[in-house]
Amino acid sequence: MEEVIIASEKLHRFVVQVFEHVGFSSEHALQGANTLLDADLRGIDSHGVARLSGYIRLLEAGRANAKPNIYITRETPSTANIDADLALGLVSGAYAMNVAIEKANNVGSAWVTVHNSNHFGIAAHHAMKALPHDMIGIAMTNASPLVAPAGSKQRMLGTNPMCFAFPSRNQHPVIVDTATSAAANGKLEIAQRKNKSVPEGWIQTENGENTTDANALKNKGSLLPLGSFAELGYHKGYGLGAVVDIFSGVLGGANFGPFVPPFVSFLPVLPNAPGKGVGHIFGVMRVDAFQEKEDYYRNMDLWIETFQKSIPINIENPVLIPGQPERECAEERMLYGIPLHQLVYNDLTEIGKKYNIIL
Amino acid sequence: MEEVIIASEKLHRFVVQVFEHVGFSSEHALQGANTLLDADLRGIDSHGVARLSGYIRLLEAGRANAKPNIYITRETPSTANIDADLALGLVSGAYAMNVAIEKANNVGSAWVTVHNSNHFGIAAHHAMKALPHDMIGIAMTNASPLVAPAGSKQRMLGTNPMCFAFPSRNQHPVIVDTATSAAANGKLEIAQRKNKSVPEGWIQTENGENTTDANALKNKGSLLPLGSFAELGYHKGYGLGAVVDIFSGVLGGANFGPFVPPFVSFLPVLPNAPGKGVGHIFGVMRVDAFQEKEDYYRNMDLWIETFQKSIPINIENPVLIPGQPERECAEERMLYGIPLHQLVYNDLTEIGKKYNIIL
Repeated sequence: MEEVIIASEKLHRFVVQVFEHVGFSSEHALQGANTLLDADLRGIDSHGVARLSGYIRLLEAGRANAKPNIYITRETPSTANIDADLALGLVSGAYAMNVAIEKANNVGSAWVTVHNSNHFGIAAHHAMKALPHDMIGIAMTNASPLVAPAGSKQRMLGTNPMCFAFPSRNQHPVIVDTATSAAANGKLEIAQRKNKSVPEGWIQTENGENTTDANALKNKGSLLPLGSFAELGYHKGYGLGAVVDIFSGVLGGANFGPFVPPFVSFLPVLPNAPGKGVGHIFGVMRVDAFQEKEDYYRNMDLWIETFQKSIPINIENPVLIPGQPERECAEERMLYGIPLHQLVYNDLTEIGKKYNIIL
Repeated sequence: MEEVIIASEKLHRFVVQVFEHVGFSSEHALQGANTLLDADLRGIDSHGVARLSGYIRLLEAGRANAKPNIYITRETPSTANIDADLALGLVSGAYAMNVAIEKANNVGSAWVTVHNSNHFGIAAHHAMKALPHDMIGIAMTNASPLVAPAGSKQRMLGTNPMCFAFPSRNQHPVIVDTATSAAANGKLEIAQRKNKSVPEGWIQTENGENTTDANALKNKGSLLPLGSFAELGYHKGYGLGAVVDIFSGVLGGANFGPFVPPFVSFLPVLPNAPGKGVGHIFGVMRVDAFQEKEDYYRNMDLWIETFQKSIPINIENPVLIPGQPERECAEERMLYGIPLHQLVYNDLTEIGKKYNIIL
């Protein structure tokens, strides 16, 4: 399968125009494009422009709102809960992080939940917004149920990512952005496209049997929590996925567990939903709310240098700092462009034709 | 090997007396005993009274302080950093959670870091202190380096637990308390004692080779991060362990990574330590800072009921809610007493003889 390489600026401009065409304000279109491009730059191809047509279908189906009236439903000096009015999470995430940063500026730290929202792209994009403010950023979201709890064969949780972004000074920031499942759905999709088998421990069949068949997920199978097997601690991955779900869903009044609305617009939303839409949570902490900024940065840089120097098993593969592969990918793609899978490229040109926007 | 069963009240009284004998105030002795007994009740035997002699040796070696002057070094309305003055974490954790709860009462949520501290027992004990206040509790700590980063053969991180405790009303609370390594050190010790092999994916040798030899850790081997293998996502466990280390160590000015002082008093503390002692972080959030308390509790109970009903692979093993096995263990041990390994019992009676305290 061929790849098409496109300059990131060009792709960004295209996405902005598409979002504006479907009714977004300039500000929201920019927020949407920034989030998607960040995913493509950082190499999280499953969460970038590959999803643009999916977002549009959600808008067309009335499950997402192009002109949302996002507002705070409840707040304290260090917390807020936001009704996203069915905005894309790409947009409501930007709103929520602004609220969180303002509150942390005032009182040291903040948590902001969002309900009545939709898929928010990559968690890292949102969490990293804290960094220029000398703040630590946290972002989590729940998602369509694909993962089974430890010992279950039922899809109950999304791949529910946790992201933590720590600012640094002379080194690059530490960005931990991790699904709480053993494998991200994106990796599975790649295996499906290539018709390759996957490692044991990623998925199980409808009956809860381990399998290496990448297509098992399409046949009512489920993803396994991080840890993969009982003896390797998959109850921990299940527990962390539950944490993300409760923070994102229960705490702010969004849906949770099997009630989280599916990303794909053709799947039905479960009746009797206990909450509203998809949910997220964002957290920020001012580093100088704990010690002198200088002291934090000196030790954060030292942390990174110390871990960079930890002895590798294979001398040719130095130990990586969390976030390093994604940053290196982004640096490369900023220079050389973003490689799009032919199917994704076709998808975008279809959108372009429909709206008369040139890619 | 025989077990000795002791009533929890009796064991609790003994631990209080021992801590008082070595110089603790009544309040601190009670906090210490509460934390250790909670571990033994909940079945986390490696973190309960089995460690009492270790704590005493830290006090005797001057690495821990029986009469600490714990104080806040910096604060904002929603944050504080605490100098534990080398208190045991059992004691400084109680102090920090009180500060956090008071701040969250005022402004909705709070984060409290602790530096210059020592081992804090089980994370769940601290996080659960938030529950009676209608608050979510978070507790993390770094610890003696035993875990290698993904692709490294060097011990750089502790088993660094994350704990999240969510209050509920008609159901039992959800308590996620998980090491970020594939296996807890306690489980490894059990295998060592029984001379049994361990699953592949728990540990590696000094050279970074996988092994099932439980004794490899004693021979300069290292524990593997949650995920165990590259293809099962052990970079995620490494990333989460890093998050705990940066929050616990870097943010509040404690040590981090390989600089965290070892729990055992006979191992030397590394020179040029960048921080002070062991570090922890505690977080609390008022549930009514996000929505009506009633709405939170209704949906939290529904979350638990929904996950309890998820379809098990084996019909005889219903799906567990995080924290359920520990709670059930505690209920049983409250009634029938706490089974102590003969070596632990001998250890305690030795202490009793030395201080003239009857177990």
